[in-house]
Amino acid sequence: MQRTVFFISDSTGITAETIGNSILAQFEGVQFDKHRLPFTDNPHKAEVAALRIKTNYAQTGLRPVVVNTMADRALCDIVATSGALMLDVFAPFIGPLEDELQTRRSGAVNRSHGMVDFDKYEARINATNYALSHDDGIDVNYDDADLILVGVSRSGKTPTCLYMALHYGVRAANYPLTDEDLEKLELPARLRPFRDRLYGLTIDAVRLAQIREQRRSGSRYATLAQCRWELEQAERLMRQTGIPSLNTTHVSIEEIASKIFDRFGIERTMF
Amino acid sequence: MQRTVFFISDSTGITAETIGNSILAQFEGVQFDKHRLPFTDNPHKAEVAALRIKTNYAQTGLRPVVVNTMADRALCDIVATSGALMLDVFAPFIGPLEDELQTRRSGAVNRSHGMVDFDKYEARINATNYALSHDDGIDVNYDDADLILVGVSRSGKTPTCLYMALHYGVRAANYPLTDEDLEKLELPARLRPFRDRLYGLTIDAVRLAQIREQRRSGSRYATLAQCRWELEQAERLMRQTGIPSLNTTHVSIEEIASKIFDRFGIERTMF
Repeated sequence: MQRTVFFISDSTGITAETIGNSILAQFEGVQFDKHRLPFTDNPHKAEVAALRIKTNYAQTGLRPVVVNTMADRALCDIVATSGALMLDVFAPFIGPLEDELQTRRSGAVNRSHGMVDFDKYEARINATNYALSHDDGIDVNYDDADLILVGVSRSGKTPTCLYMALHYGVRAANYPLTDEDLEKLELPARLRPFRDRLYGLTIDAVRLAQIREQRRSGSRYATLAQCRWELEQAERLMRQTGIPSLNTTHVSIEEIASKIFDRFGIERTMF
Repeated sequence: MQRTVFFISDSTGITAETIGNSILAQFEGVQFDKHRLPFTDNPHKAEVAALRIKTNYAQTGLRPVVVNTMADRALCDIVATSGALMLDVFAPFIGPLEDELQTRRSGAVNRSHGMVDFDKYEARINATNYALSHDDGIDVNYDDADLILVGVSRSGKTPTCLYMALHYGVRAANYPLTDEDLEKLELPARLRPFRDRLYGLTIDAVRLAQIREQRRSGSRYATLAQCRWELEQAERLMRQTGIPSLNTTHVSIEEIASKIFDRFGIERTMF
Protein backbone atom coordinates (compact mmCIF):
# COMPACT_ATOMS: atom_id res chain seq x y z
CA MET A 1 0.00 0.00 0.00
CA GLN A 2 1.30 3.41 -0.98
CA ARG A 3 1.36 6.23 1.52
CA THR A 4 -0.46 9.31 0.21
CA VAL A 5 1.31 12.66 0.42
CA PHE A 6 -0.37 16.02 -0.24
CA PHE A 7 1.67 19.12 -1.06
CA ILE A 8 -0.53 22.02 0.04
CA SER A 9 0.17 25.69 -0.53
CA ASP A 10 -1.52 29.08 -0.76
CA SER A 11 0.51 29.63 -3.92
CA THR A 12 2.01 27.39 -6.63
CA GLY A 13 3.04 24.59 -4.25
CA ILE A 14 6.49 24.40 -5.82
CA THR A 15 8.32 24.95 -2.53
CA ALA A 16 6.18 22.34 -0.75
CA GLU A 17 6.77 19.86 -3.53
CA THR A 18 10.50 20.52 -3.77
CA ILE A 19 11.22 20.07 -0.10
CA GLY A 20 8.63 17.28 0.19
CA ASN A 21 10.29 15.28 -2.58
CA SER A 22 13.68 15.76 -0.98
CA ILE A 23 12.48 14.58 2.42
CA LEU A 24 10.59 11.60 1.00
CA ALA A 25 13.68 10.59 -1.02
CA GLN A 26 15.27 9.84 2.36
CA PHE A 27 12.81 6.92 2.74
CA GLU A 28 13.83 4.81 -0.21
CA GLY A 29 11.83 1.70 0.71
CA VAL A 30 8.45 3.46 0.94
CA GLN A 31 6.16 4.05 -2.06
CA PHE A 32 4.43 7.44 -2.07
CA ASP A 33 1.36 8.57 -3.98
CA LYS A 34 1.85 12.31 -4.36
CA HIS A 35 -0.77 15.01 -4.97
CA ARG A 36 -0.67 18.78 -5.26
CA LEU A 37 -3.20 21.17 -3.72
CA PRO A 38 -2.00 24.60 -4.90
CA PHE A 39 -3.72 27.97 -4.39
CA THR A 40 -5.39 26.88 -1.16
CA ASP A 41 -5.83 30.44 0.00
CA ASN A 42 -9.23 30.70 1.68
CA PRO A 43 -11.23 28.77 4.31
CA HIS A 44 -13.52 27.17 1.75
CA LYS A 45 -10.63 25.72 -0.25
CA ALA A 46 -8.96 24.58 2.97
CA GLU A 47 -12.14 22.74 3.99
CA VAL A 48 -12.39 21.05 0.59
CA ALA A 49 -8.74 20.02 0.93
CA ALA A 50 -9.33 18.69 4.44
CA LEU A 51 -12.26 16.59 3.21
CA ARG A 52 -10.25 15.19 0.37
CA ILE A 53 -7.39 14.23 2.70
CA LYS A 54 -9.84 12.72 5.19
CA THR A 55 -11.44 10.66 2.41
CA ASN A 56 -8.05 9.33 1.41
CA TYR A 57 -7.33 8.40 5.04
CA ALA A 58 -10.60 6.47 5.23
CA GLN A 59 -10.00 4.74 1.89
CA THR A 60 -6.41 3.69 2.48
CA GLY A 61 -6.51 3.19 6.24
CA LEU A 62 -3.10 4.88 6.30
CA ARG A 63 -2.59 8.33 7.76
CA PRO A 64 -1.76 10.73 4.91
CA VAL A 65 1.22 13.07 5.12
CA VAL A 66 0.67 16.78 4.40
CA VAL A 67 3.63 18.96 3.43
CA ASN A 68 2.37 22.46 4.06
CA THR A 69 3.59 25.93 3.07
CA MET A 70 0.38 27.92 3.77
CA ALA A 71 1.25 31.07 5.72
CA ASP A 72 -2.17 31.56 7.37
CA ARG A 73 -2.40 29.70 10.69
CA ALA A 74 -6.22 29.47 10.46
CA LEU A 75 -6.00 27.62 7.12
CA CYS A 76 -3.44 25.20 8.55
CA ASP A 77 -5.79 24.46 11.45
CA ILE A 78 -8.62 23.64 9.05
CA VAL A 79 -6.45 21.22 7.05
CA ALA A 80 -5.20 19.63 10.28
CA THR A 81 -8.77 18.52 11.09
CA SER A 82 -8.25 15.85 8.41
CA GLY A 83 -6.15 13.90 10.89
CA ALA A 84 -3.12 13.85 8.58
CA LEU A 85 0.47 14.14 9.75
CA MET A 86 1.11 17.86 9.19
CA LEU A 87 4.66 18.84 8.24
CA ASP A 88 4.85 22.63 8.26
CA VAL A 89 7.78 23.61 6.07
CA PHE A 90 8.35 27.12 7.42
CA ALA A 91 7.51 26.83 11.12
CA PRO A 92 10.87 25.44 12.33
CA PHE A 93 12.90 28.21 10.68
CA ILE A 94 10.85 31.33 11.28
CA GLY A 95 11.56 31.54 15.03
CA PRO A 96 15.37 31.30 14.77
CA LEU A 97 15.38 33.78 11.88
CA GLU A 98 13.13 36.24 13.69
CA ASP A 99 15.55 36.17 16.61
CA GLU A 100 18.63 36.50 14.41
CA LEU A 101 17.24 39.27 12.17
CA GLN A 102 15.48 41.04 15.05
CA THR A 103 12.34 41.44 12.97
CA ARG A 104 8.97 39.68 12.63
CA ARG A 105 7.94 37.67 9.58
CA SER A 106 5.47 39.46 7.35
CA GLY A 107 3.10 36.50 7.12
CA ALA A 108 2.46 37.25 3.46
CA VAL A 109 1.44 34.56 1.01
CA ASN A 110 4.59 32.95 -0.36
CA ARG A 111 5.32 34.68 -3.64
CA SER A 112 8.81 33.28 -4.12
CA HIS A 113 7.66 31.64 -7.36
CA GLY A 114 5.72 34.68 -8.48
CA MET A 115 6.88 37.71 -10.44
CA VAL A 116 8.46 39.32 -7.41
CA ASP A 117 11.39 41.03 -9.07
CA PHE A 118 10.28 42.15 -12.50
CA ASP A 119 13.79 42.82 -13.85
CA LYS A 120 14.98 39.39 -12.84
CA TYR A 121 11.88 37.81 -14.33
CA GLU A 122 12.45 39.63 -17.59
CA ALA A 123 16.08 38.45 -17.60
CA ARG A 124 14.85 34.83 -17.40
CA ILE A 125 12.48 35.29 -20.30
CA ASN A 126 15.08 37.13 -22.38
CA ALA A 127 17.65 34.41 -21.62
CA THR A 128 15.12 31.76 -22.69
CA ASN A 129 14.58 33.56 -25.99
CA TYR A 130 18.36 33.79 -26.32
CA ALA A 131 18.75 30.05 -25.77
CA LEU A 132 16.08 29.35 -28.38
CA SER A 133 17.63 31.63 -30.99
CA HIS A 134 21.17 30.38 -30.27
CA ASP A 135 20.21 26.72 -30.18
CA ASP A 136 21.84 24.17 -32.43
CA GLY A 137 24.00 26.67 -34.30
CA ILE A 138 21.02 28.70 -35.63
CA ASP A 139 22.45 32.07 -34.66
CA VAL A 140 26.20 31.81 -34.14
CA ASN A 141 26.91 35.31 -32.92
CA TYR A 142 28.08 34.47 -29.42
CA ASP A 143 29.15 37.94 -28.24
CA ASP A 144 26.41 38.07 -25.61
CA ALA A 145 26.67 34.45 -24.46
CA ASP A 146 27.43 33.77 -20.81
CA LEU A 147 28.52 30.31 -21.88
CA ILE A 148 28.39 28.01 -24.92
CA LEU A 149 27.78 24.27 -24.68
CA VAL A 150 29.48 22.15 -27.33
CA GLY A 151 28.96 18.47 -28.10
CA VAL A 152 27.67 16.05 -30.69
CA SER A 153 24.00 16.05 -31.64
CA ARG A 154 21.73 14.76 -28.80
CA SER A 155 24.28 14.97 -26.02
CA GLY A 156 21.92 17.04 -23.87
CA LYS A 157 22.86 20.58 -24.85
CA THR A 158 19.43 22.04 -25.63
CA PRO A 159 17.49 21.04 -22.49
CA THR A 160 20.44 22.13 -20.34
CA CYS A 161 20.61 25.56 -22.02
CA LEU A 162 16.86 26.03 -21.63
CA TYR A 163 17.00 25.07 -17.96
CA MET A 164 19.88 27.45 -17.21
CA ALA A 165 18.05 30.26 -19.00
CA LEU A 166 14.61 29.64 -17.48
CA HIS A 167 15.80 29.39 -13.90
CA TYR A 168 18.98 31.41 -13.69
CA GLY A 169 18.65 33.93 -16.50
CA VAL A 170 21.97 32.66 -17.87
CA ARG A 171 22.38 33.27 -21.59
CA ALA A 172 23.50 29.85 -22.73
CA ALA A 173 24.10 29.11 -26.40
CA ASN A 174 24.87 25.73 -27.86
CA TYR A 175 26.90 24.60 -30.83
CA PRO A 176 26.65 21.09 -32.26
CA LEU A 177 30.04 19.76 -33.39
CA THR A 178 29.78 18.83 -37.06
CA ASP A 179 31.43 15.96 -38.89
CA GLU A 180 33.79 18.51 -40.37
CA ASP A 181 34.82 19.81 -36.92
CA LEU A 182 35.29 16.24 -35.73
CA GLU A 183 37.35 15.16 -38.75
CA LYS A 184 39.66 18.16 -38.53
CA LEU A 185 39.86 17.92 -34.73
CA GLU A 186 39.71 21.69 -34.71
CA LEU A 187 37.45 24.16 -33.02
CA PRO A 188 35.42 26.01 -35.63
CA ALA A 189 36.72 29.53 -36.14
CA ARG A 190 33.57 31.13 -34.75
CA LEU A 191 34.05 29.43 -31.37
CA ARG A 192 37.73 30.30 -30.93
CA PRO A 193 37.24 33.84 -29.56
CA PHE A 194 35.04 32.39 -26.80
CA ARG A 195 37.24 29.53 -25.66
CA ASP A 196 36.95 30.46 -21.97
CA ARG A 197 33.15 30.26 -22.18
CA LEU A 198 33.01 26.78 -23.75
CA TYR A 199 31.86 23.68 -21.90
CA GLY A 200 31.60 20.21 -23.46
CA LEU A 201 28.87 17.63 -22.97
CA THR A 202 29.56 13.98 -23.72
CA ILE A 203 27.47 10.84 -23.31
CA ASP A 204 27.98 7.07 -23.54
CA ALA A 205 27.82 5.80 -27.13
CA VAL A 206 25.21 3.10 -26.43
CA ARG A 207 22.88 5.64 -24.83
CA LEU A 208 23.43 8.13 -27.62
CA ALA A 209 22.58 5.48 -30.23
CA GLN A 210 19.30 4.73 -28.36
CA ILE A 211 18.33 8.41 -28.29
CA ARG A 212 19.17 8.91 -31.96
CA GLU A 213 17.35 5.71 -32.93
CA GLN A 214 14.16 7.14 -31.37
CA ARG A 215 14.67 10.26 -33.41
CA ARG A 216 15.72 8.87 -36.80
CA SER A 217 15.18 5.16 -36.76
CA GLY A 218 17.46 3.10 -39.01
CA SER A 219 19.63 6.07 -40.02
CA ARG A 220 23.42 6.03 -40.22
CA TYR A 221 23.25 8.90 -37.68
CA ALA A 222 21.84 6.44 -35.14
CA THR A 223 24.30 3.58 -35.62
CA LEU A 224 26.52 2.65 -32.73
CA ALA A 225 29.60 2.92 -34.97
CA GLN A 226 28.78 6.50 -35.95
CA CYS A 227 28.00 7.48 -32.34
CA ARG A 228 31.27 5.91 -31.16
CA TRP A 229 33.31 7.73 -33.77
CA GLU A 230 31.69 11.11 -33.10
CA LEU A 231 32.10 10.80 -29.33
CA GLU A 232 35.72 9.67 -29.53
CA GLN A 233 36.59 12.55 -31.80
CA ALA A 234 34.62 15.04 -29.70
CA GLU A 235 36.33 13.94 -26.51
CA ARG A 236 39.71 14.11 -28.21
CA LEU A 237 38.93 17.63 -29.44
CA MET A 238 37.85 18.74 -25.96
CA ARG A 239 41.02 17.30 -24.41
CA GLN A 240 43.30 18.86 -27.00
CA THR A 241 41.73 22.28 -26.72
CA GLY A 242 41.34 22.17 -22.95
CA ILE A 243 37.55 22.46 -22.89
CA PRO A 244 36.11 21.19 -19.58
CA SER A 245 33.50 18.51 -20.10
CA LEU A 246 30.97 16.26 -18.40
CA ASN A 247 29.47 12.90 -19.33
CA THR A 248 25.70 13.39 -19.08
CA THR A 249 24.59 9.73 -19.30
CA HIS A 250 23.54 9.46 -15.66
CA VAL A 251 23.33 13.16 -14.81
CA SER A 252 20.17 15.29 -14.81
CA ILE A 253 19.97 18.76 -16.34
CA GLU A 254 19.78 20.21 -12.82
CA GLU A 255 23.05 18.50 -11.92
CA ILE A 256 24.71 19.44 -15.21
CA ALA A 257 23.73 23.09 -14.71
CA SER A 258 25.01 23.13 -11.10
CA LYS A 259 28.32 21.61 -12.15
CA ILE A 260 28.78 24.06 -15.02
CA PHE A 261 28.00 27.06 -12.78
CA ASP A 262 30.41 25.68 -10.19
CA ARG A 263 33.14 25.36 -12.83
CA PHE A 264 32.66 28.86 -14.21
CA GLY A 265 32.17 30.42 -10.78
CA ILE A 266 28.66 31.57 -11.74
CA GLU A 267 26.96 32.24 -8.43
CA ARG A 268 23.73 33.62 -9.82
CA THR A 269 20.89 32.28 -7.71
CA MET A 270 17.82 30.70 -9.16
CA PHE A 271 14.48 32.40 -9.57
CA MET B 1 24.24 46.17 5.28
CA GLN B 2 23.00 43.02 3.59
CA ARG B 3 22.78 39.79 5.50
CA THR B 4 24.68 36.99 3.76
CA VAL B 5 22.93 33.68 3.20
CA PHE B 6 24.67 30.50 2.04
CA PHE B 7 22.71 27.63 0.49
CA ILE B 8 24.84 24.55 1.16
CA SER B 9 24.20 21.06 -0.16
CA ASP B 10 25.94 17.77 -0.90
CA SER B 11 24.13 17.83 -4.25
CA THR B 12 22.82 20.57 -6.56
CA GLY B 13 21.60 22.85 -3.78
CA ILE B 14 18.27 23.38 -5.50
CA THR B 15 16.22 22.22 -2.52
CA ALA B 16 18.21 24.42 -0.13
CA GLU B 17 17.80 27.38 -2.43
CA THR B 18 14.09 26.83 -3.04
CA ILE B 19 13.12 26.57 0.60
CA GLY B 20 15.65 29.22 1.58
CA ASN B 21 14.21 31.74 -0.87
CA SER B 22 10.71 30.98 0.39
CA ILE B 23 11.67 31.49 4.02
CA LEU B 24 13.63 34.67 3.31
CA ALA B 25 10.67 36.05 1.33
CA GLN B 26 8.86 36.16 4.68
CA PHE B 27 11.24 38.93 5.78
CA GLU B 28 10.43 41.58 3.22
CA GLY B 29 12.33 44.43 4.86
CA VAL B 30 15.69 42.65 4.96
CA GLN B 31 18.21 42.63 2.07
CA PHE B 32 19.95 39.30 1.55
CA ASP B 33 23.16 38.54 -0.33
CA LYS B 34 22.72 34.93 -1.45
CA HIS B 35 25.40 32.39 -2.37
CA ARG B 36 25.33 28.75 -3.39
CA LEU B 37 27.76 26.09 -2.16
CA PRO B 38 26.68 22.95 -4.07
CA PHE B 39 28.37 19.52 -4.10
CA THR B 40 29.81 19.98 -0.60
CA ASP B 41 30.18 16.24 -0.13
CA ASN B 42 33.46 15.64 1.72
CA PRO B 43 35.25 17.03 4.80
CA HIS B 44 37.72 19.06 2.75
CA LYS B 45 34.96 20.89 0.87
CA ALA B 46 33.07 21.40 4.14
CA GLU B 47 36.17 22.99 5.70
CA VAL B 48 36.64 25.30 2.72
CA ALA B 49 32.96 26.28 2.99
CA ALA B 50 33.29 26.91 6.73
CA LEU B 51 36.29 29.18 6.13
CA ARG B 52 34.47 31.12 3.46
CA ILE B 53 31.46 31.63 5.75
CA LYS B 54 33.73 32.60 8.65
CA THR B 55 35.50 35.15 6.44
CA ASN B 56 32.17 36.68 5.48
CA TYR B 57 31.20 36.88 9.15
CA ALA B 58 34.44 38.73 9.95
CA GLN B 59 34.07 41.06 6.98
CA THR B 60 30.45 42.02 7.51
CA GLY B 61 30.26 41.78 11.28
CA LEU B 62 26.87 40.15 10.78
CA ARG B 63 26.28 36.48 11.52
CA PRO B 64 25.66 34.69 8.18
CA VAL B 65 22.70 32.38 7.73
CA VAL B 66 23.32 28.87 6.36
CA VAL B 67 20.43 26.96 4.78
CA ASN B 68 21.69 23.38 4.81
CA THR B 69 20.57 20.17 3.09
CA MET B 70 23.71 18.06 3.61
CA ALA B 71 22.74 14.61 4.86
CA ASP B 72 26.02 13.78 6.62
CA ARG B 73 26.03 14.96 10.24
CA ALA B 74 29.84 15.19 10.32
CA LEU B 75 29.86 17.65 7.41
CA CYS B 76 27.18 19.79 9.10
CA ASP B 77 29.32 19.93 12.24
CA ILE B 78 32.31 21.16 10.23
CA VAL B 79 30.26 23.95 8.59
CA ALA B 80 28.78 24.90 11.99
CA THR B 81 32.29 25.79 13.24
CA SER B 82 31.93 28.93 11.08
CA GLY B 83 29.66 30.38 13.75
CA ALA B 84 26.78 30.91 11.28
CA LEU B 85 23.12 30.44 12.12
CA MET B 86 22.55 26.90 10.82
CA LEU B 87 19.09 26.14 9.45
CA ASP B 88 18.93 22.41 8.72
CA VAL B 89 16.15 21.90 6.19
CA PHE B 90 15.53 18.20 6.79
CA ALA B 91 16.10 17.77 10.53
CA PRO B 92 12.66 18.92 11.76
CA PHE B 93 10.77 16.54 9.48
CA ILE B 94 12.79 13.35 9.59
CA GLY B 95 11.83 12.42 13.18
CA PRO B 96 8.06 12.71 12.73
CA LEU B 97 8.25 10.85 9.41
CA GLU B 98 10.39 8.07 10.87
CA ASP B 99 7.76 7.59 13.57
CA GLU B 100 4.85 7.71 11.14
CA LEU B 101 6.40 5.41 8.51
CA GLN B 102 7.97 3.11 11.09
CA THR B 103 11.24 3.11 9.21
CA ARG B 104 14.61 4.85 9.44
CA ARG B 105 15.84 7.40 6.92
CA SER B 106 18.48 6.04 4.57
CA GLY B 107 20.84 8.98 5.07
CA ALA B 108 21.75 8.93 1.40
CA VAL B 109 22.89 12.03 -0.42
CA ASN B 110 19.82 13.90 -1.65
CA ARG B 111 19.34 12.85 -5.24
CA SER B 112 15.88 14.32 -5.69
CA HIS B 113 17.25 16.55 -8.46
CA GLY B 114 19.28 13.77 -10.00
CA MET B 115 18.31 11.19 -12.59
CA VAL B 116 16.54 9.03 -10.02
CA ASP B 117 13.71 7.69 -12.16
CA PHE B 118 15.07 7.22 -15.66
CA ASP B 119 11.65 6.85 -17.35
CA LYS B 120 10.39 10.05 -15.78
CA TYR B 121 13.57 11.85 -16.74
CA GLU B 122 13.24 10.67 -20.33
CA ALA B 123 9.61 11.87 -20.35
CA ARG B 124 10.80 15.37 -19.40
CA ILE B 125 13.38 15.46 -22.16
CA ASN B 126 10.92 14.06 -24.71
CA ALA B 127 8.29 16.60 -23.64
CA THR B 128 10.86 19.38 -24.02
CA ASN B 129 11.63 18.24 -27.56
CA TYR B 130 7.88 18.08 -28.17
CA ALA B 131 7.43 21.66 -26.95
CA LEU B 132 10.27 22.83 -29.20
CA SER B 133 8.91 21.08 -32.29
CA HIS B 134 5.33 22.20 -31.60
CA ASP B 135 6.26 25.76 -30.75
CA ASP B 136 4.75 28.68 -32.59
CA GLY B 137 2.74 26.59 -35.02
CA ILE B 138 5.83 24.85 -36.51
CA ASP B 139 4.36 21.34 -36.31
CA VAL B 140 0.58 21.55 -35.99
CA ASN B 141 -0.21 17.87 -35.51
CA TYR B 142 -1.61 18.06 -31.98
CA ASP B 143 -2.74 14.43 -31.55
CA ASP B 144 -0.17 13.80 -28.81
CA ALA B 145 -0.52 17.14 -27.05
CA ASP B 146 -1.54 17.13 -23.38
CA LEU B 147 -2.57 20.74 -23.88
CA ILE B 148 -2.25 23.56 -26.39
CA LEU B 149 -1.69 27.20 -25.43
CA VAL B 150 -3.23 29.78 -27.73
CA GLY B 151 -2.68 33.52 -27.77
CA VAL B 152 -1.21 36.37 -29.76
CA SER B 153 2.50 36.54 -30.44
CA ARG B 154 4.57 37.26 -27.25
CA SER B 155 1.82 36.57 -24.74
CA GLY B 156 4.06 34.10 -22.86
CA LYS B 157 3.22 30.82 -24.59
CA THR B 158 6.69 29.51 -25.37
CA PRO B 159 8.41 29.91 -21.97
CA THR B 160 5.33 28.44 -20.27
CA CYS B 161 5.30 25.39 -22.57
CA LEU B 162 9.02 24.83 -22.01
CA TYR B 163 8.63 25.09 -18.26
CA MET B 164 5.73 22.62 -18.15
CA ALA B 165 7.68 20.18 -20.32
CA LEU B 166 11.01 20.48 -18.50
CA HIS B 167 9.57 20.07 -15.02
CA TYR B 168 6.40 18.06 -15.40
CA GLY B 169 6.92 16.10 -18.61
CA VAL B 170 3.70 17.65 -19.91
CA ARG B 171 3.56 17.73 -23.72
CA ALA B 172 2.49 21.33 -24.26
CA ALA B 173 2.13 22.74 -27.77
CA ASN B 174 1.42 26.33 -28.60
CA TYR B 175 -0.39 28.01 -31.44
CA PRO B 176 -0.06 31.73 -32.19
CA LEU B 177 -3.37 33.25 -33.27
CA THR B 178 -2.88 34.85 -36.68
CA ASP B 179 -4.41 38.03 -38.04
CA GLU B 180 -6.66 35.79 -40.14
CA ASP B 181 -7.91 33.89 -37.06
CA LEU B 182 -8.49 37.20 -35.27
CA GLU B 183 -10.34 38.81 -38.17
CA LYS B 184 -12.63 35.84 -38.66
CA LEU B 185 -13.08 35.37 -34.91
CA GLU B 186 -12.94 31.65 -35.55
CA LEU B 187 -10.76 28.90 -34.21
CA PRO B 188 -8.55 27.57 -36.98
CA ALA B 189 -9.79 24.20 -38.24
CA ARG B 190 -6.75 22.36 -36.94
CA LEU B 191 -7.45 23.41 -33.37
CA ARG B 192 -11.15 22.48 -33.33
CA PRO B 193 -10.74 18.76 -32.63
CA PHE B 194 -8.74 19.64 -29.51
CA ARG B 195 -11.03 22.26 -27.99
CA ASP B 196 -10.97 20.66 -24.54
CA ARG B 197 -7.16 20.89 -24.44
CA LEU B 198 -6.95 24.58 -25.34
CA TYR B 199 -5.95 27.27 -22.87
CA GLY B 200 -5.61 30.96 -23.71
CA LEU B 201 -2.94 33.40 -22.57
CA THR B 202 -3.60 37.12 -22.68
CA ILE B 203 -1.57 40.12 -21.55
CA ASP B 204 -2.07 43.87 -21.09
CA ALA B 205 -1.68 45.78 -24.35
CA VAL B 206 0.86 48.29 -22.99
CA ARG B 207 3.09 45.50 -21.74
CA LEU B 208 2.75 43.57 -24.99
CA ALA B 209 3.75 46.64 -26.98
CA GLN B 210 6.89 47.01 -24.80
CA ILE B 211 7.88 43.38 -25.34
CA ARG B 212 7.31 43.57 -29.09
CA GLU B 213 9.17 46.89 -29.31
CA GLN B 214 12.25 45.16 -27.83
CA ARG B 215 11.91 42.47 -30.46
CA ARG B 216 11.07 44.47 -33.58
CA SER B 217 11.58 48.12 -32.84
CA GLY B 218 9.43 50.54 -34.81
CA SER B 219 7.36 47.85 -36.49
CA ARG B 220 3.60 47.94 -36.94
CA TYR B 221 3.61 44.68 -34.98
CA ALA B 222 4.85 46.60 -31.92
CA THR B 223 2.39 49.52 -32.04
CA LEU B 224 -0.02 49.90 -29.18
CA ALA B 225 -2.96 50.09 -31.63
CA GLN B 226 -2.04 46.74 -33.21
CA CYS B 227 -1.50 45.11 -29.79
CA ARG B 228 -4.85 46.43 -28.55
CA TRP B 229 -6.70 45.16 -31.61
CA GLU B 230 -5.11 41.71 -31.47
CA LEU B 231 -5.77 41.31 -27.75
CA GLU B 232 -9.38 42.48 -27.98
CA GLN B 233 -10.07 40.08 -30.81
CA ALA B 234 -8.23 37.22 -29.08
CA GLU B 235 -10.17 37.73 -25.85
CA ARG B 236 -13.42 37.89 -27.81
CA LEU B 237 -12.54 34.66 -29.60
CA MET B 238 -11.70 32.92 -26.32
CA ARG B 239 -14.95 34.06 -24.74
CA GLN B 240 -17.05 33.02 -27.74
CA THR B 241 -15.48 29.59 -28.00
CA GLY B 242 -15.36 28.99 -24.25
CA ILE B 243 -11.57 28.69 -23.98
CA PRO B 244 -10.38 29.32 -20.40
CA SER B 245 -7.73 32.02 -20.24
CA LEU B 246 -5.36 33.91 -17.98
CA ASN B 247 -3.81 37.37 -18.15
CA THR B 248 -0.06 36.83 -17.75
CA THR B 249 1.04 40.45 -17.20
CA HIS B 250 1.85 40.02 -13.51
CA VAL B 251 2.03 36.23 -13.34
CA SER B 252 5.20 34.12 -13.54
CA ILE B 253 5.52 30.99 -15.69
CA GLU B 254 5.47 28.90 -12.50
CA GLU B 255 2.14 30.44 -11.51
CA ILE B 256 0.71 30.15 -15.03
CA ALA B 257 1.65 26.46 -15.15
CA SER B 258 0.15 25.75 -11.72
CA LYS B 259 -3.09 27.46 -12.68
CA ILE B 260 -3.34 25.59 -15.99
CA PHE B 261 -2.69 22.22 -14.31
CA ASP B 262 -5.27 23.10 -11.67
CA ARG B 263 -7.84 23.92 -14.34
CA PHE B 264 -7.23 20.74 -16.36
CA GLY B 265 -6.96 18.56 -13.26
CA ILE B 266 -3.39 17.59 -14.19
CA GLU B 267 -1.90 16.29 -10.95
CA ARG B 268 1.41 15.19 -12.36
CA THR B 269 4.08 16.06 -9.83
CA MET B 270 7.24 17.86 -10.76
CA PHE B 271 10.61 16.23 -11.25
